[in-house]
Amino acid sequence: MPDPRFFAVAGPFALAEIAEAVGALLAAGADPAKTLSDVAPLGQAGPEHLSFLDNRKYVEAFATCRAGACIAPAALADRAPPDVAILTSEAPYKSYALAAALFYPVSAPAPGVHPAVVGEGCRIEAGAVIEAGARLGARCLIGANVTIGTAVEIGEDTRIAAGASLSHCIVGARVSIFPGVRIGQEGFGFAVDKSGHVRVPQLGRVLIEDDVEIGANTTIDRGAGPDTVIGQGCCIDNLVQIAHNVRIGRGTMIAAQSGVAGSARIGDFVQIAGQVGVLGHLTVGDGVQLVGQSGIIRDIEPGETYAGTPAVPIRQWHRQTAQLARLARGRASPE
Amino acid sequence: MPDPRFFAVAGPFALAEIAEAVGALLAAGADPAKTLSDVAPLGQAGPEHLSFLDNRKYVEAFATCRAGACIAPAALADRAPPDVAILTSEAPYKSYALAAALFYPVSAPAPGVHPAVVGEGCRIEAGAVIEAGARLGARCLIGANVTIGTAVEIGEDTRIAAGASLSHCIVGARVSIFPGVRIGQEGFGFAVDKSGHVRVPQLGRVLIEDDVEIGANTTIDRGAGPDTVIGQGCCIDNLVQIAHNVRIGRGTMIAAQSGVAGSARIGDFVQIAGQVGVLGHLTVGDGVQLVGQSGIIRDIEPGETYAGTPAVPIRQWHRQTAQLARLARGRASPE
Amino acid sequence: MPDPRFFAVAGPFALAEIAEAVGALLAAGADPAKTLSDVAPLGQAGPEHLSFLDNRKYVEAFATCRAGACIAPAALADRAPPDVAILTSEAPYKSYALAAALFYPVSAPAPGVHPAVVGEGCRIEAGAVIEAGARLGARCLIGANVTIGTAVEIGEDTRIAAGASLSHCIVGARVSIFPGVRIGQEGFGFAVDKSGHVRVPQLGRVLIEDDVEIGANTTIDRGAGPDTVIGQGCCIDNLVQIAHNVRIGRGTMIAAQSGVAGSARIGDFVQIAGQVGVLGHLTVGDGVQLVGQSGIIRDIEPGETYAGTPAVPIRQWHRQTAQLARLARGRASPE
Repeated sequence: MPDPRFFAVAGPFALAEIAEAVGALLAAGADPAKTLSDVAPLGQAGPEHLSFLDNRKYVEAFATCRAGACIAPAALADRAPPDVAILTSEAPYKSYALAAALFYPVSAPAPGVHPAVVGEGCRIEAGAVIEAGARLGARCLIGANVTIGTAVEIGEDTRIAAGASLSHCIVGARVSIFPGVRIGQEGFGFAVDKSGHVRVPQLGRVLIEDDVEIGANTTIDRGAGPDTVIGQGCCIDNLVQIAHNVRIGRGTMIAAQSGVAGSARIGDFVQIAGQVGVLGHLTVGDGVQLVGQSGIIRDIEPGETYAGTPAVPIRQWHRQTAQLARLARGRASPE
Repeated sequence: MPDPRFFAVAGPFALAEIAEAVGALLAAGADPAKTLSDVAPLGQAGPEHLSFLDNRKYVEAFATCRAGACIAPAALADRAPPDVAILTSEAPYKSYALAAALFYPVSAPAPGVHPAVVGEGCRIEAGAVIEAGARLGARCLIGANVTIGTAVEIGEDTRIAAGASLSHCIVGARVSIFPGVRIGQEGFGFAVDKSGHVRVPQLGRVLIEDDVEIGANTTIDRGAGPDTVIGQGCCIDNLVQIAHNVRIGRGTMIAAQSGVAGSARIGDFVQIAGQVGVLGHLTVGDGVQLVGQSGIIRDIEPGETYAGTPAVPIRQWHRQTAQLARLARGRASPE
Repeated sequence: MPDPRFFAVAGPFALAEIAEAVGALLAAGADPAKTLSDVAPLGQAGPEHLSFLDNRKYVEAFATCRAGACIAPAALADRAPPDVAILTSEAPYKSYALAAALFYPVSAPAPGVHPAVVGEGCRIEAGAVIEAGARLGARCLIGANVTIGTAVEIGEDTRIAAGASLSHCIVGARVSIFPGVRIGQEGFGFAVDKSGHVRVPQLGRVLIEDDVEIGANTTIDRGAGPDTVIGQGCCIDNLVQIAHNVRIGRGTMIAAQSGVAGSARIGDFVQIAGQVGVLGHLTVGDGVQLVGQSGIIRDIEPGETYAGTPAVPIRQWHRQTAQLARLARGRASPE
């Protein structure tokens, strides 16, 4: 459930209101007057929550969920537990996006100049802005022209360099954030259909554990519902992209200009070289090594080394490149 | 013709002055005393403008142009309409660069501290700088430490997050600009020859249409003469590069770390995955889908799906990767 | 030796203290009471300096070095000149990292708000922060919300656009730095072993020579000990990564989203297209051209043109792609 420090929930809303707002229909047995107070992922939803099923991959979770109501395709409605009210939709993810926007409306900004609040016992350099409700641990260094958003929490001895901006995040101790880093902005989440795309409210946070280092101009988006998590002791280089819902284990190193797409899971002590791309929703095991510029499109077992696009085990990649060179020579021989 | 809100034109200049300044020669029949007031692309130039022909691809436009004068290679001079004065040059693009710099000199900055002007009816957070002449529509949110450059125009309900900077651009309504975005800086334009490279003045703007979203630390350069245009409803992710003169249609989505090189045309509802590169001066048709890390080096017809570097139709790419794997296995079999 | 304007040295320290702090052993003949005043690379170290040997590649330099003491693997200790005291370590690079941290401790920031100092004769826009000791040449333009770090030096007629941040660097004349550029932050340097990674203090600078242009949101890390150098007249596009210790010659052009890894040497008038990756410690000769998205994993001779990942001479790359297409067609023929 979204962190109330960062997100203000509206509602409660009755099922009938919700169904109308999201273009869904009440399935047989759903009480139009039943009210719900929030949205939540299938795994975390309770009786007061609205959840959704969009991907067959999650039918198991759907069949055992404890949500008060769930948006689902009509064809799968009968898989729900008896006490879960179903809202059927031809585009469940789009309907969820509209429901989330109903519960978490974008508040029109009030006019006026926002006051900056200086934290205690820290060094705050010129032009830094600490927004209301932010909390800085002891001995933090906040560089010039940094922006710390509302309610952000930062641990002891953390250093944030010039021009970085943080929002919707909880940062640990002894973290080093380099200049121009962007943490906590909305993830790239849209429900797409022929009528165009609908923005999916991004209601999670970014959790940066202790002793992490984040390189210059790197971007880390907040989660869509779950959080984006950077594990203890990770070292991330410059210009890296970490998308929403990504979870990275302890001590993983990611070199410059690599990108990890949404909801990917990266293990502990993984080594990712530069300009690597990891597709969304994949799992990369502990201790994996990824060669520069590789493109990861499948799960990778712990300890493996992969290279190429699409990435293959490194010995296969070496054979492929050798074979290609051989072919090219053969082709060239008549010259 | 450059937007006078962003660019101050010098001149007028006589053909003789121009020829001397740009290392060109007056062709037979060109009146040295004829004066010109500005530079313009072939297609838009009128009798008061200086244009140029550098690429044979544009000989048609040259042959029908209405420019007062044109810089061109001697070998093509006779293709010009009779009333167009010709300045012949061995390096027409370099000569144009020098001419554009003559008409649009870089003004030495006046000493002093620039005043910030706060727009009306908007929320302007701490440390934001709104330069003179900028205009913000109703209900805009300008985040902390944002910089809005001189004469920039922004539509209603647009939100610009912390640390972003905009110049030389016109932004629509309901646009969401994420932290650290850079819009309107000079494009990467140089006239290169053995003697080194000459900076080509970048005299266009960036036009961001309504309902666009631009991700964190993404960069969008202003046009060289034409504008850079991001169409209505486009969604651009983090760390994307959009070069000068690029035109993107409506509803196109571009995932993180992709780049579109100069003067490329991207259609409507194109879907570009992460870390894709599109070469300059190409056309990517409506509804095209580009797989992650692909490198586009040719025009692509509407509706196609391409993958790989150099990119090929996705079915061919699947066959290529299957064949490579087969070759590698064959090679490995003796082991 | 680190520039005292940017780095405050502690010490001197006795060999015995150092050995204990870095997990090394004094080799036979090393005087525990001998004191050293600083750390330095093998090639530059004098009698008062501590240096290290980690890579067999540098055994020659080790055998002729003039360092007062050197951290080295026990197996290579006998290769040192007789008057060089040896500290043996199973992880020399990690031991060096700890030694460098001993000589250059991170000073806990003093509480308080840092004053901004406005340079003379320059235009400083709103929100710009010029830290103590920074020196700006005549007629510089410092954009809004820029941060110029302590002791940074900038030459005449240099322009720094909105939101950029510079530290630990010396910048020449007529340099153009675009919005959001990050110069001088610590390089991505760690001594890695099974027990995790140790941060290696980054004690070098960034030297930007005259007439350089650096694109929006590009990142240039400072050296680890040597400096990172961008040669006269280089043009670097947006979102480019230049790692620590990289040296780039004169007039080289690097297009958007390319990255050069640590300690690589790039020659004069090299042309690097977009999204290229250059591996660390390589040498790319003068006048080389690198095709977009190529991955450079070997040294390249002057004047060559390379493409592909791993990059090969462009004619070979064309043959390889042609052969792949042929294979794919063959495979498809039965259809």
